[in-house]
Amino acid sequence: MPHIDLPDGVPGIVSAMQFRPETAIPLNALAETLLRDDNTLSRGERELIAAYVSNLNECQFCQASHSAFAALQVDGGMEVVEQVKRDPDSAPISDKLKALLHIAAKVTNDGRSVTAEDVEAARAAGASDVEIHDAVLIAAAFCMFNRYVDGLATWSPTDPEMYAMNAHRIVENGYVGSV
Amino acid sequence: MPHIDLPDGVPGIVSAMQFRPETAIPLNALAETLLRDDNTLSRGERELIAAYVSNLNECQFCQASHSAFAALQVDGGMEVVEQVKRDPDSAPISDKLKALLHIAAKVTNDGRSVTAEDVEAARAAGASDVEIHDAVLIAAAFCMFNRYVDGLATWSPTDPEMYAMNAHRIVENGYVGSV
Repeated sequence: MPHIDLPDGVPGIVSAMQFRPETAIPLNALAETLLRDDNTLSRGERELIAAYVSNLNECQFCQASHSAFAALQVDGGMEVVEQVKRDPDSAPISDKLKALLHIAAKVTNDGRSVTAEDVEAARAAGASDVEIHDAVLIAAAFCMFNRYVDGLATWSPTDPEMYAMNAHRIVENGYVGSV
Repeated sequence: MPHIDLPDGVPGIVSAMQFRPETAIPLNALAETLLRDDNTLSRGERELIAAYVSNLNECQFCQASHSAFAALQVDGGMEVVEQVKRDPDSAPISDKLKALLHIAAKVTNDGRSVTAEDVEAARAAGASDVEIHDAVLIAAAFCMFNRYVDGLATWSPTDPEMYAMNAHRIVENGYVGSV
């Protein structure tokens, strides 16, 4: 049961955003800018980072949601998403994305653990400064979203169909106005 | 040295925000809504939560910045801020704020560690559902800001005077447009 009086039957972060629409506005704007605005990283690649970090943080609602969002937007679909969550280095993704996921894992643990060598490896694999910045901020942002969702003990549906349905809505319409 | 090509001589999150103004807009809007908009928690109380969490995460730039912002807005100034960071339970603050800081510390570690008992204790000390929500989201948000600042290895000034100067600017003008 959620820790506070969130709307009934509304899952995860959506319930918290309906409870407090004032903070939902910048949170959704941040997700839209980071995960969907024009970028040299595809929407699928950015959702993979979100799913990977949420899985490291063991946030069931966020990892299932962003896995579903990624699956609709990457070659190979859910099979590749599951491979990335299990072991990015053996997944069929670019070396650049592997290096960015490595940085994202460091940020998830502690921002200070990112080394100059981690960043150099990403650059050698073709990552730009903006891509490195965005990987750091996506990882950091999901350390927020995951804690927000779990810190309020929001409802996390177990039916995969609910996540798949929601994924089509987000992939088509985006985050802004999604609540 | 920062991991990416951030503007020279610009400290902490400000350098990251100048590098990527697109994401700075929702980040500053979130800080403004959470820490400064009308609320039954005072601006000083909310900055205390931000300083406390940033100190737990050992983010030097954020903890020094938000300590300075809190010191200007709480009774007792920096002495009380330092007491809260050292040991909230013995600090001269309300029982409600102590209970919210306890929840914030749990969220900082892992959202799932917040218990129904933690929330009940906050409610017994007079916290509303919105105040509990906001304490959770402030803690979660600073888990993001701290990782953003440290994950890019931004410059963290050591001169307290720089933080004090910046504090007057933020307390007077707010976060939006601060970059």
